[in-house]
Amino acid sequence: MNIHHNIEQLSNIKTDLFGKDFLLTWEKSEASIRMILDVANILKEMRASNISTRLFDSGLAISNFRDNSTRTRFSFASASNLLGLAVQDLDEEKSQIAHGETVRETANMISFMSDFIGIRDDMFLGEGNKYMREVGAALDEGFANGVLPSRPGIVNLQCDMDHPTQSLADLAHLQQQFGSLENLRGKKIVMSWAYSPSYGKPLSVPQGVIALMSRFGMNIELAYPEGYGLIPEIVDIAKSNSAQSGGSLNISHSMEEAMQDADIVYPKSWAPFHIMQQRTALLQKADKQGLKELEQVCLANNAKFKNWEYDASKMKQTKNGDALYLHCLPADISGVSCEAGEVNAAVFEKYRIRTYLEAGYKPYVIAAMMLTNKFSQPAEILNKILERKNLRVGI
Amino acid sequence: MNIHHNIEQLSNIKTDLFGKDFLLTWEKSEASIRMILDVANILKEMRASNISTRLFDSGLAISNFRDNSTRTRFSFASASNLLGLAVQDLDEEKSQIAHGETVRETANMISFMSDFIGIRDDMFLGEGNKYMREVGAALDEGFANGVLPSRPGIVNLQCDMDHPTQSLADLAHLQQQFGSLENLRGKKIVMSWAYSPSYGKPLSVPQGVIALMSRFGMNIELAYPEGYGLIPEIVDIAKSNSAQSGGSLNISHSMEEAMQDADIVYPKSWAPFHIMQQRTALLQKADKQGLKELEQVCLANNAKFKNWEYDASKMKQTKNGDALYLHCLPADISGVSCEAGEVNAAVFEKYRIRTYLEAGYKPYVIAAMMLTNKFSQPAEILNKILERKNLRVGI
Amino acid sequence: MNIHHNIEQLSNIKTDLFGKDFLLTWEKSEASIRMILDVANILKEMRASNISTRLFDSGLAISNFRDNSTRTRFSFASASNLLGLAVQDLDEEKSQIAHGETVRETANMISFMSDFIGIRDDMFLGEGNKYMREVGAALDEGFANGVLPSRPGIVNLQCDMDHPTQSLADLAHLQQQFGSLENLRGKKIVMSWAYSPSYGKPLSVPQGVIALMSRFGMNIELAYPEGYGLIPEIVDIAKSNSAQSGGSLNISHSMEEAMQDADIVYPKSWAPFHIMQQRTALLQKADKQGLKELEQVCLANNAKFKNWEYDASKMKQTKNGDALYLHCLPADISGVSCEAGEVNAAVFEKYRIRTYLEAGYKPYVIAAMMLTNKFSQPAEILNKILERKNLRVGI
Repeated sequence: MNIHHNIEQLSNIKTDLFGKDFLLTWEKSEASIRMILDVANILKEMRASNISTRLFDSGLAISNFRDNSTRTRFSFASASNLLGLAVQDLDEEKSQIAHGETVRETANMISFMSDFIGIRDDMFLGEGNKYMREVGAALDEGFANGVLPSRPGIVNLQCDMDHPTQSLADLAHLQQQFGSLENLRGKKIVMSWAYSPSYGKPLSVPQGVIALMSRFGMNIELAYPEGYGLIPEIVDIAKSNSAQSGGSLNISHSMEEAMQDADIVYPKSWAPFHIMQQRTALLQKADKQGLKELEQVCLANNAKFKNWEYDASKMKQTKNGDALYLHCLPADISGVSCEAGEVNAAVFEKYRIRTYLEAGYKPYVIAAMMLTNKFSQPAEILNKILERKNLRVGI
Repeated sequence: MNIHHNIEQLSNIKTDLFGKDFLLTWEKSEASIRMILDVANILKEMRASNISTRLFDSGLAISNFRDNSTRTRFSFASASNLLGLAVQDLDEEKSQIAHGETVRETANMISFMSDFIGIRDDMFLGEGNKYMREVGAALDEGFANGVLPSRPGIVNLQCDMDHPTQSLADLAHLQQQFGSLENLRGKKIVMSWAYSPSYGKPLSVPQGVIALMSRFGMNIELAYPEGYGLIPEIVDIAKSNSAQSGGSLNISHSMEEAMQDADIVYPKSWAPFHIMQQRTALLQKADKQGLKELEQVCLANNAKFKNWEYDASKMKQTKNGDALYLHCLPADISGVSCEAGEVNAAVFEKYRIRTYLEAGYKPYVIAAMMLTNKFSQPAEILNKILERKNLRVGI
Repeated sequence: MNIHHNIEQLSNIKTDLFGKDFLLTWEKSEASIRMILDVANILKEMRASNISTRLFDSGLAISNFRDNSTRTRFSFASASNLLGLAVQDLDEEKSQIAHGETVRETANMISFMSDFIGIRDDMFLGEGNKYMREVGAALDEGFANGVLPSRPGIVNLQCDMDHPTQSLADLAHLQQQFGSLENLRGKKIVMSWAYSPSYGKPLSVPQGVIALMSRFGMNIELAYPEGYGLIPEIVDIAKSNSAQSGGSLNISHSMEEAMQDADIVYPKSWAPFHIMQQRTALLQKADKQGLKELEQVCLANNAKFKNWEYDASKMKQTKNGDALYLHCLPADISGVSCEAGEVNAAVFEKYRIRTYLEAGYKPYVIAAMMLTNKFSQPAEILNKILERKNLRVGI
């Protein structure tokens, strides 16, 4: 059987996933990244075959969304449910909760019967990932002192630095579209800034994409208008990954030129790093007037780059005029969701269903993170799932 | 055993429920309507006998309430839980989401692991049911293209046209109170407008009631003040149903006269069709001033019909002065929930517990819709439930 | 085995828990109180041993929070999940719903498939507990009339009079810290008012603590500034409990003196009884101006007692300078969560982890209330849990 075979492949792989939070892809070994993809694919196959993959008879998965979300919220809920966990929302005020006592205490108070905490905190540069680590340290302390019967795992559902459940879903999609991770070697992927009528979009998607794709020998073209750079340290990580994996990373400033011979394109808006720094400072001071002024400046600046729309003429420049289009969704589609945006409507339509397929990996990626966090021998537990033969639906 | 016997009765009935959304009762065959009632009653009996009717080991039921709800929300949650599904709310803005891209995309994004989507969208004439069909078409597309592992079923939890979970709960209650559906033949049921101090109540309850009850040979009296008509096309459907089923449908304009010799009465406020049309136009333009003015006009008009209260003298006109009183709840009870309303307090009190019993069918009706959507042989799956002998509570 | 032994101890104890709401600890026999603690401890041990304590294959636990909550909300969700119930929130307006028809009707409408309703209603003196009883009476009526297939149990998650899930968690913690309930006999516990920069904190915690601890032979010192008294009837109950249990209850008005030789201290702010009466009257009239003025008066009055902070010098007065510090959390910690508050930061830090351990009993206390409400023979059902050997996590 196909599933049996796929599980067997996992048997001897050593990873650094068991008992560890999943916060940044670049903290995880390549074996771990591959394990997440493999387990995600096996869980997907199992569900399609009406096999119940329930591993928890009871238990809670806490979701802590410090920014709005529909897609990731449903992905987290789906993954939790797939494994048997009930979701409980932690409904904070959307503002940053004071660090210190409150984080430490709240982390423990919600975790007496929690198996996972999924956190989205992507508004403040320098804060989101730090917050997740504060929560993690508080859970470590609680577990060490007998407050918590087990140490809940943390899943990064998007922070200021990375968006690992997204980038891994993107990678799973590429793996499927190109046949294997090995086939991605030498492929050109363009992570390009694109125009959007909104401002303040997080940097975590482009950062997560270049930091992950650079590990698989791809040639990355990172394109953005001058001044729209990402966090320099993360670009450095991607560069170093590229060097190691035998790929490359080039930065350029013309969408049109960047698209030449691309195999894969990811045109997506984001706010410039230095703007996000200013914005974070203003948000922390709750300076409404300052924020309003910054928004005006930004929108005016963005408007200079309305031609950074991924349209038919740019698509034509790509390999066979048909590079695979990726997006984390929702895209700003010109004439559909906004007047002028990231992508031309007809171009988007051509790849629309494939962007849905791309998104469809996210619940399984999250479930794979959960499974590998709780079970040191994923192959063994997946085999047991097969053996017990529980149906997901029906008797 | 009673349950065994009831299940046997189902064995050979052919319905049009399997794999189909439940959007309008008049799209379903009489066999399907009877199947819903029968399955609902069997599930109710099973739960009362502490038999677990869980059929999903995991899975999500999405609820999308585009208007407030307590009763239907809990009924949907209860039905989902009864079958083993976890509820996940889609918390949109309460305004109409732009049709087109967003509906299509969101429908897929929330459905990667969903088995059902329950939708309430009853504010806009010409919109609610249409929206459900847009969602359905998007799910069809997603399923056909491999985006979704299965096609989630849609349950109409109230739209601008019909409120099938309500009218079927009403019918189940009538079946129980009168002994059988056959006993309803020739009974007079009065669906009457009643005064309320609020305005803009949806038309879906009276429309749903006349369109469904007309299929069982009842004599329907639809009573309302001149100008308070329902959607003409749905009244036509009810008329045609009456003709076919050997019943009748008469429209009149005096509550008092309508009540003569009634076996069943359903006094309930609604907004006139032509007002709902104006209101929809104003809502779509977000014309607050216009809405305020329309409300004033309507309330002033309603006030002319304060005598459309179901009171002791009107009750006296009914068969033996004791027609069965129905209401979808909450009723506007004079002197209790408002100064003057749909029903006199003492009259309501006489039938209060029975309105609760009526409401009590709704969770089972929804569960029956779900079960028959997912299982082509309901009798077979219900028998398996009996055979496996799982307790709902206890070991 | 340890768990086996603990279950055996329960076998022959008669309690008044089965089928009864848990509203006030002083309505329950001592055997019942001990049963709650014992079952809670057994469930805690079982979960730590990865034994699934699931007793419901499906079913709902309704939470009705009429005031904000994080800790208790998560405790209720955890307890429900531990036993296999799904939580469904009843999201009312935060204002008091009109008593009468609505309470009666809503109670039934949400309960067709509910096993428990957890209610927090602590804002209005004379209202919260009354509301819970109104809900209970409505459920009785519904069950008696066949509206409800079973009578959902009510769990008091804090009212105007008592906070039983908190005081029982506190007691479980004391039992663990001192080795047994018997060891608490003769111990001095100080329930002391403490300064807080906020006002209007409920009386239910101090009331719940003195009414419960007085049953175990402890010497209770109730300390507060003149004018900050509790509900007199509840103080009388505590006094009478003390007399019966061989303990004592003394009221005094100096935090410093009260702390002399204390074994246990519980410094916690609350609003004076007579202020809560005025506040309730103003809230019921929705008199915003009056509320604002009352707040000013209160805060000014509180400010006279800033020295009612539990600090190192007061801690020094206690037994060995190391009385066990209790708090229901979150505490107002001077220099951490506020400028000046209930407790000095270094003192709090010394006991911080132990306050987390204290809080950790709450989910198990609630689960024990649920289990003993639904199963007349707790020992028997706990033994069955052991025998079936279901894992909570894993296969």
